[in-house]
Amino acid sequence: MGNEQLEELRDQLDSINEQLVELINERAKVAQEIGRVKRAQGLNRFDPVRERKMLDIIENKNKGPFETSTLQHIFKQIFKASLELQEDDHSKALLV
Amino acid sequence: MGNEQLEELRDQLDSINEQLVELINERAKVAQEIGRVKRAQGLNRFDPVRERKMLDIIENKNKGPFETSTLQHIFKQIFKASLELQEDDHSKALLV
Repeated sequence: MGNEQLEELRDQLDSINEQLVELINERAKVAQEIGRVKRAQGLNRFDPVRERKMLDIIENKNKGPFETSTLQHIFKQIFKASLELQEDDHSKALLV
Repeated sequence: MGNEQLEELRDQLDSINEQLVELINERAKVAQEIGRVKRAQGLNRFDPVRERKMLDIIENKNKGPFETSTLQHIFKQIFKASLELQEDDHSKALLV
């Protein structure tokens, strides 16, 4: 039955979405920690060389079906959001 | 040592990035399959009600540190890319 099949596939998608939410938040926590270490060392939060390296690794690890450019676009949103999170932490640290 | 700590955190980030690449591509495969089932049933690929439901689930599952709006923004990019992938499949199917 087509509808049963559709329901099953949607359940799979919901399960993957849930794992993605957890993993993206886990990544955010590590990025926050990196922000703290860098702040303590007086380093700039944004590091274009490191970001380029991560984008290259994504290209190497990509087996599809998404195009590498599509994955890199999604990751750039994640990088941007992580940097904003580190900046929020920094503002809060300054207020303490 | 700060540099060792930074390297360790970056290794963790690389590992999470790799898992994300795999999971996002796994999601893309399921979305492609959904596209095929919907095409066979003559259903429209874009379903705003289903998309809204997925965004609501993301809100329910989010334990931070990312804001729900940030996660939803990232997922909207993934939804958009998935839809484009389904459309590519459709174009290819028409050419067969």
